[in-house]
Amino acid sequence: MKIGGKHWRTIWPEDEGAVGIIDQTKLPHRFETLSLHTLEDAAHAIKAMIVRGAPLIGATAAYGIALAMHKDTSDAALDAAHDTLLETRPTAVNLHWALKRMRDRLRNQPPAERAALAWKEAATICDEDVEVCRAIGEHGLKLFREAAAKKKPGETLNVLTHCNAGWLACVDWGTALAPIYMAHDSGIKLHVRVDETRPRNQGASLTAYELGSHGVPHTIIADNAGGLYMRQKQVDLCIVGTDRVTANGDVANKIGTYLKALAAKDNDVPFYVALPSSTIDWNLSRGEDIPIEERSADELLKMTGRLPDGGLATVEIAAPGSPAANPGFDVTPARLVTAFVTERGVCAADEAGLRGLFPKQ
Amino acid sequence: MKIGGKHWRTIWPEDEGAVGIIDQTKLPHRFETLSLHTLEDAAHAIKAMIVRGAPLIGATAAYGIALAMHKDTSDAALDAAHDTLLETRPTAVNLHWALKRMRDRLRNQPPAERAALAWKEAATICDEDVEVCRAIGEHGLKLFREAAAKKKPGETLNVLTHCNAGWLACVDWGTALAPIYMAHDSGIKLHVRVDETRPRNQGASLTAYELGSHGVPHTIIADNAGGLYMRQKQVDLCIVGTDRVTANGDVANKIGTYLKALAAKDNDVPFYVALPSSTIDWNLSRGEDIPIEERSADELLKMTGRLPDGGLATVEIAAPGSPAANPGFDVTPARLVTAFVTERGVCAADEAGLRGLFPKQ
Repeated sequence: MKIGGKHWRTIWPEDEGAVGIIDQTKLPHRFETLSLHTLEDAAHAIKAMIVRGAPLIGATAAYGIALAMHKDTSDAALDAAHDTLLETRPTAVNLHWALKRMRDRLRNQPPAERAALAWKEAATICDEDVEVCRAIGEHGLKLFREAAAKKKPGETLNVLTHCNAGWLACVDWGTALAPIYMAHDSGIKLHVRVDETRPRNQGASLTAYELGSHGVPHTIIADNAGGLYMRQKQVDLCIVGTDRVTANGDVANKIGTYLKALAAKDNDVPFYVALPSSTIDWNLSRGEDIPIEERSADELLKMTGRLPDGGLATVEIAAPGSPAANPGFDVTPARLVTAFVTERGVCAADEAGLRGLFPKQ
Repeated sequence: MKIGGKHWRTIWPEDEGAVGIIDQTKLPHRFETLSLHTLEDAAHAIKAMIVRGAPLIGATAAYGIALAMHKDTSDAALDAAHDTLLETRPTAVNLHWALKRMRDRLRNQPPAERAALAWKEAATICDEDVEVCRAIGEHGLKLFREAAAKKKPGETLNVLTHCNAGWLACVDWGTALAPIYMAHDSGIKLHVRVDETRPRNQGASLTAYELGSHGVPHTIIADNAGGLYMRQKQVDLCIVGTDRVTANGDVANKIGTYLKALAAKDNDVPFYVALPSSTIDWNLSRGEDIPIEERSADELLKMTGRLPDGGLATVEIAAPGSPAANPGFDVTPARLVTAFVTERGVCAADEAGLRGLFPKQ
């Protein structure tokens, strides 16, 4: 995607064995990049959400293994790097997937070749992610075309999304936002309502930033507002990403997704979930078994933003002394999901649907 | 309610024809009071949400009429004051109710007596509101006792509320929070999850402040989180206030209420709405006809809080240049409401239920 006319990915190899990333904690206030030099840098970037979004977490973890191999190519170092990175975030399954793939790729190779192989494999994971997101965009575009065809001539197709499942959550394109970019680029007149996505505001910060940079008409709304708009027939479809889909089609995604899915069901609005197949956890049979990350109360109690002089400040916003709880994800039962949009096409949100596109190996 | 050991109401007559209020825009950061001297002061206080909450809006409007009569007791002044105050907020019906009551009380009285009568009537409205809220608390307490009786010994009764329907929204006690205070005071072990309530954060700011001041165990959560907690069986009942209930039992309340009601229904959690009968709009047959206030985008795009040095600052939090929309209320259909808690008791959320307690005059 382009920022100020220049094409960017969210992660890239740099000279001398470093990895470049966009510091997403600074967005939308500042566009800054960082270099990761060590395994610890990569683990911190994931944990502190300097990078976030299930696919990008996987890609960063892959490069984290490569950074570790740059220093020590032993089996012990490989296992330690795998375990360190696995502990950074509990909910996104792409992390498991990417780490397993890296370790499987390197395990039986001579240590002397592991550093070079790891760099190559991490780069391949990134390139594949771009291709997968592009394919998700193409398949989703068909759904958007169908929805647009139901509108009267000149009417706008109204889309609602939650959190950020755009190119900033991936390596490029995004998952839920890929069809939005392609629909916009193909001339479909659309407008996106962007849930603010408390408490970290990835909608108001990142999705709005992405859509604004690309010129897609959009409006930020409170997470509370989507139900009203659906009741007022001002939403034609919802599309979100996911951090983990269980074998039965249950969807873990950013906290609040479940509430929007309920409202969509109550108002006959299609609710689509876009995902690369690396997000499917075939080992879990139902959403109740997905671990839900509990994050810092500070994310709810404090807010960072721009002062009138352009500087950044963090303010405490809640009643002094009141505690807060901050679960990062919820689980939307498959019964509320209209369809999955994957790199191999669109399918029903159940095991048969998923297995139809992704048969057992 | 007590603040720092002193008993406060949210509005009170002062010497020399002024009216005292708590500046709720400063809470929870500062406890400051203001004096209203003119009709215009009262209208501004309502419009700028220096006072808010349907019952307190009604009480402030009543005193606004009294302030107007202090200056000019003519029929024309009475009508002008009525119309000015009616335009301040569109959704809460208590405003209409209080203004009609004041005008009806004064209209056929000699102008020379109107100023004194208006002061007396406004004070009566306030006293009645306190009594009504106390009665709502008593009736709600029975529901809390029943819910607590279903818990195992020693278990905590988990309550969820949205926005602020506490004493700060009324003259004293509150509507939805009155049963919570009474349950806590009567020794029921309870814990309240407080929705932050974006975009104005009345939950994190006002409800948390109230509950903290009264010593009620509570936790602030993102508006997005309530669905997860209900799925995890961590909510025993929800209780909220309302700005207007239509004759069929549909409920206008703070934006986001509908989403929580959907989640409650999906998880068999009772969803109660507490209201004084002045909130019932017998003239509207269904919620779709309630006007929904559209408020400033700045409420979503900016945030005020405390700096580390104790000063207050307002920061811009969203992507620069992205527009926002800010509807203040949504409508929860009666089918999602378990029961109404009114000053005359608990009733079904439909016309028969309401008419059973409040027969046609």
